[in-house]
Amino acid sequence: MSQTRAPGRKTRFGVVGAGLWGSFHCQTLNAIEASELYAVCDLNPERAAEMQRQFGATKVYTDYRDLLANPDVEAVTVATPDFAHGDIVLAAIKAGKHVMSEKPLATTLAEVEAIASAAAVSGTKTMVDFHNRVSPPIVAVKQAVAAGEIGVPLHASARLSNTQFVPFELLSWAAKSSALWFLGSHALDALRFIMGAEVKRVQAMARHGHLAGKGVDTADVHMALLEFDNGCVATLQNSWVLPLDLPSIVDFRIDIVGEKGAVETYPTMNDVVKKYTGNGLRGADVIGITPTAGGRIGGFVTEAIARFVDAVVLDAPVLADARDGLQVTRVLVAIEESARTGKTITLADGVA
Amino acid sequence: MSQTRAPGRKTRFGVVGAGLWGSFHCQTLNAIEASELYAVCDLNPERAAEMQRQFGATKVYTDYRDLLANPDVEAVTVATPDFAHGDIVLAAIKAGKHVMSEKPLATTLAEVEAIASAAAVSGTKTMVDFHNRVSPPIVAVKQAVAAGEIGVPLHASARLSNTQFVPFELLSWAAKSSALWFLGSHALDALRFIMGAEVKRVQAMARHGHLAGKGVDTADVHMALLEFDNGCVATLQNSWVLPLDLPSIVDFRIDIVGEKGAVETYPTMNDVVKKYTGNGLRGADVIGITPTAGGRIGGFVTEAIARFVDAVVLDAPVLADARDGLQVTRVLVAIEESARTGKTITLADGVA
Amino acid sequence: MSQTRAPGRKTRFGVVGAGLWGSFHCQTLNAIEASELYAVCDLNPERAAEMQRQFGATKVYTDYRDLLANPDVEAVTVATPDFAHGDIVLAAIKAGKHVMSEKPLATTLAEVEAIASAAAVSGTKTMVDFHNRVSPPIVAVKQAVAAGEIGVPLHASARLSNTQFVPFELLSWAAKSSALWFLGSHALDALRFIMGAEVKRVQAMARHGHLAGKGVDTADVHMALLEFDNGCVATLQNSWVLPLDLPSIVDFRIDIVGEKGAVETYPTMNDVVKKYTGNGLRGADVIGITPTAGGRIGGFVTEAIARFVDAVVLDAPVLADARDGLQVTRVLVAIEESARTGKTITLADGVA
Amino acid sequence: MSQTRAPGRKTRFGVVGAGLWGSFHCQTLNAIEASELYAVCDLNPERAAEMQRQFGATKVYTDYRDLLANPDVEAVTVATPDFAHGDIVLAAIKAGKHVMSEKPLATTLAEVEAIASAAAVSGTKTMVDFHNRVSPPIVAVKQAVAAGEIGVPLHASARLSNTQFVPFELLSWAAKSSALWFLGSHALDALRFIMGAEVKRVQAMARHGHLAGKGVDTADVHMALLEFDNGCVATLQNSWVLPLDLPSIVDFRIDIVGEKGAVETYPTMNDVVKKYTGNGLRGADVIGITPTAGGRIGGFVTEAIARFVDAVVLDAPVLADARDGLQVTRVLVAIEESARTGKTITLADGVA
Repeated sequence: MSQTRAPGRKTRFGVVGAGLWGSFHCQTLNAIEASELYAVCDLNPERAAEMQRQFGATKVYTDYRDLLANPDVEAVTVATPDFAHGDIVLAAIKAGKHVMSEKPLATTLAEVEAIASAAAVSGTKTMVDFHNRVSPPIVAVKQAVAAGEIGVPLHASARLSNTQFVPFELLSWAAKSSALWFLGSHALDALRFIMGAEVKRVQAMARHGHLAGKGVDTADVHMALLEFDNGCVATLQNSWVLPLDLPSIVDFRIDIVGEKGAVETYPTMNDVVKKYTGNGLRGADVIGITPTAGGRIGGFVTEAIARFVDAVVLDAPVLADARDGLQVTRVLVAIEESARTGKTITLADGVA
Repeated sequence: MSQTRAPGRKTRFGVVGAGLWGSFHCQTLNAIEASELYAVCDLNPERAAEMQRQFGATKVYTDYRDLLANPDVEAVTVATPDFAHGDIVLAAIKAGKHVMSEKPLATTLAEVEAIASAAAVSGTKTMVDFHNRVSPPIVAVKQAVAAGEIGVPLHASARLSNTQFVPFELLSWAAKSSALWFLGSHALDALRFIMGAEVKRVQAMARHGHLAGKGVDTADVHMALLEFDNGCVATLQNSWVLPLDLPSIVDFRIDIVGEKGAVETYPTMNDVVKKYTGNGLRGADVIGITPTAGGRIGGFVTEAIARFVDAVVLDAPVLADARDGLQVTRVLVAIEESARTGKTITLADGVA
Repeated sequence: MSQTRAPGRKTRFGVVGAGLWGSFHCQTLNAIEASELYAVCDLNPERAAEMQRQFGATKVYTDYRDLLANPDVEAVTVATPDFAHGDIVLAAIKAGKHVMSEKPLATTLAEVEAIASAAAVSGTKTMVDFHNRVSPPIVAVKQAVAAGEIGVPLHASARLSNTQFVPFELLSWAAKSSALWFLGSHALDALRFIMGAEVKRVQAMARHGHLAGKGVDTADVHMALLEFDNGCVATLQNSWVLPLDLPSIVDFRIDIVGEKGAVETYPTMNDVVKKYTGNGLRGADVIGITPTAGGRIGGFVTEAIARFVDAVVLDAPVLADARDGLQVTRVLVAIEESARTGKTITLADGVA
Repeated sequence: MSQTRAPGRKTRFGVVGAGLWGSFHCQTLNAIEASELYAVCDLNPERAAEMQRQFGATKVYTDYRDLLANPDVEAVTVATPDFAHGDIVLAAIKAGKHVMSEKPLATTLAEVEAIASAAAVSGTKTMVDFHNRVSPPIVAVKQAVAAGEIGVPLHASARLSNTQFVPFELLSWAAKSSALWFLGSHALDALRFIMGAEVKRVQAMARHGHLAGKGVDTADVHMALLEFDNGCVATLQNSWVLPLDLPSIVDFRIDIVGEKGAVETYPTMNDVVKKYTGNGLRGADVIGITPTAGGRIGGFVTEAIARFVDAVVLDAPVLADARDGLQVTRVLVAIEESARTGKTITLADGVA
């Protein structure tokens, strides 16, 4: 691995977005020896200042353009709301920075295409944070498939859904997104990653009304059928209307049946930890963020962020690049179109 | 309940088909006080004779037409291979007999329509053995939905699949059927039964090749999206290519998410009994056929058959009638058509 | 099977105890062709009258001695509170009646010994309702062990516990019993039944304080080690302090590891039905009482009661006899003694 | 945190034992910036040389005494077979080295007492690698208990067992250990860690014969009852005779019931990943060793080792100290004694 830095010198990173995921970015950049959390940025000056105070960045900004204009910033990570990813990512690429974005890269196909085009000709790294690619159960599934343990995949199912807590409580901007965009992007990429295959045909249905009737004007659920270019057919389900009393706010399940075997995973609602403390069964995260000390990171959520540092500092491959983001976005758009028109959408050859 | 028989007189039943399910029919008719297993029938004379010997019927036939011509036979049950249901059921109705058929009623829409038309004007009972309507977990789910425990259903998933044992070993006539017809009929009826709703729109994909490549020329799997007339959207998955080393040869799962709650069931591959005796996890049936003595029946498989006796003898409603069989068949045909053409199929108003 | 009744004549049964289990007795006796629910009895005249009204018995009593004095009553079933079983059972045997008791036969060893002695010399049937002997998962486990699927049993674990609902809400007489007596009797008998072996050595610990501190003066939990005469060592756990928000009020688990394999069962808290309707995961009974029509019984709870009718009417073996009740009681008493003294209790040869 | 090293200087570690766990030690020491894998040691010169080649240590030894005699070695980790821990640990302490041992510290109480005495007066760190203290599900359980989510613990169960693969295939020295020593040490420490309580009374049974009959002369299983000084009673089960076709070679389960709630964990045989590839259900590790890149460690197995580096370099507390090892050993010895004598063993006040 070619080192791009002088011995001992730390690469300077900037983080845009002072929410939960921004804090994971900051922690990870602080934990890794080769990276320096140099700058932080949030639209809200108080949140930006608190972010600087908590994580110790040298610089603080409220406008990402100012951060990008600082030549000392070598790489940028983006953890703003979904609809605010695209502009920042594109500007960062154009400013010659390495950039990692939380998924999705952007919320319109045009934006994502522009990003992918810019990334293709830039000399810098662009990464979309499809962190399930380092989630232990997803990796275990991928390894089983890649090792031929189940033979050729014949059919699959993926579901990644949230309880109503997410659209009603967690996200102030839920009406600008949907379970399909917020979660389907992850699930689709996981299927692509596991099988090393692309979607070539899409059918879909959606249901509207429950969320909209309570003030969040977006789809309750999208359900899609996907045909992959390896011949595998799959269902994809993304709901935002699961009941609040589920053991987890995330219901993530993938199963793949092949000629010789099958593999199934429940990364979230599983039986590893079961708590009954007055309101029924509750689980616990044991893989996303894990217990550490000594300033280390632990869990796949931070490992994924660390992969961006590896890419920048060690010239390692990114976990998922702009083209991955584009492929996923094209399928999401096709699902929306099929749900709207009732037509089967065939993805262009160049895409799949 | 109005009794249609004189006190003490037993109603005379005939059973056509000497396989496993025919034996369940015979056992049940023998167990119930009000019914007499009067006649048995199988194309194969030796199997027919053995059936008579084992279950003690007065008459034995090798041609169902002879059985139907016997005026002493009041009611007939049909447990032949799937493709051989339709002719017998229609002839039985026309002969003025009460008739129950294992599902599906027939394997072409034309046959099922003819049966439904004949049944509509007959004075006799026609029942299709959708036995999941008395399966305890399915009934528990239906009761929860009917009681409003989950509110209006928003989305659902159903899967009913088999390991490759069924197409390759169990059924000599697998190529004349498919997981869709063999299993999808049950799963679809279960969704209709649970929600009290009909399918109005269908999209589907299928995969061919694995079974066909090994000599059983039928689909590996059908995957469908269903829109019900209560607004619920659902996925339906029916595969015949599951691996042989699953804990059960049947993978049956249904989940329904409503405005206020959710319910999920695993009638087959569940954790009630787990055995490890050299070849990995194996389960056990604890609801289909259950331990009894004293000549009693036990389990929902035989309870469903007993419901036909109730219908004939006590004038109770049948568990599912010819119209149920027709509705299900129309959806199956629509799934096949959508899988073939890639088009969304809208079921006619009169149907849905 | 030799019939003890004239053709068409129904055997006359009396039921003592108008609670939930008494109603199961009545339903079962009404459902079976060969039995007649002839008499009912409850200390409370209103409950007794309501029982007669609901189930249609010819006679109604408030004193079981009057019921036993009626020579037309041929067989008696007992479904009173646990502490009120012994007197009735013993009196029934002495009155020359067949008798079935809900478990335990009695709540002192002296009473059970007296019953077992009386039963040994009576010409009538005595049955204790260890209904798990016909529970489908327990039968599946027993069959696996009996068939040699796991080889010689090496070690086992059994737990049968309740949420705090049972001592605090369900049973007004909880302080006169304990999880050990109320539940341990079932679990112990299940282990005996599955392995065909007897306990020969016992160690135990108990914890007191939580229930007592809230007004129900009995043990919170008993935990025991058991050595069986087939060499198997086992743990037995019976708690009455499980949290209220478990998916079921009953936590029943058994696992047995043998030389060649292992088998495990979760008859109650399993994944067959999962409901989320506002208070977290809830399950559903799918084996105890199952859906029926036509006046039939369904589920192992009623099948067990029917076995008593079989025993009386068809001279079939009882499901479990007074000696079974005695063996279980001796072990319960040994567990209590070991918990109190800290000593290992060796059961006398004659016993084990 | 007080740094004990000069800026940039790495602390020099030696690893004794070239097996799987020794490789985890080496990887971890290499991954952490502040530690240097300076020396490796194995009795077998070829294995020692290979270890040096693979992990790049400066020094290589075949006699641990030579390694300890090197003043440049500041800290030592021990990953030899269980029976060979004690001598090395004690010698390391006496040589003034920091030392971490895989559990158990030693296999006799006398050795462990000597180690604990020496550790108490040394100025160096002694750690026993009870890595479950950083296993995410165990930490989740501890946090729930510590936060009062379940109230005062009333009863608990722990089982940590292996399939027969471990005594028959994995460990050449199985007859010198047992499931109790190899696994019970972990399970006991986990209960102590979760509840912050010590065992004060022990009863136990063991079964011998199956392993011995096949040439591995040790107990098949130990089952124990434990009373903790917080009033909690618990069962502990450690078997080495589980069937080979379980989904995992490790069956680890803990459940704790408290006054206000309950918590249960399945760190190994859970439903996170389910594979069916010809031999029945198989799982996958998703928490012990997790996917990383960039030279990072991932998973609790390596995190635990890293805690020893933290202790040495940052003066952080060790994960578990020699006194923890001693407490656990005293309980193991008490379990063996109780199983042998049938007596309840009360642990001395000073101990508990």
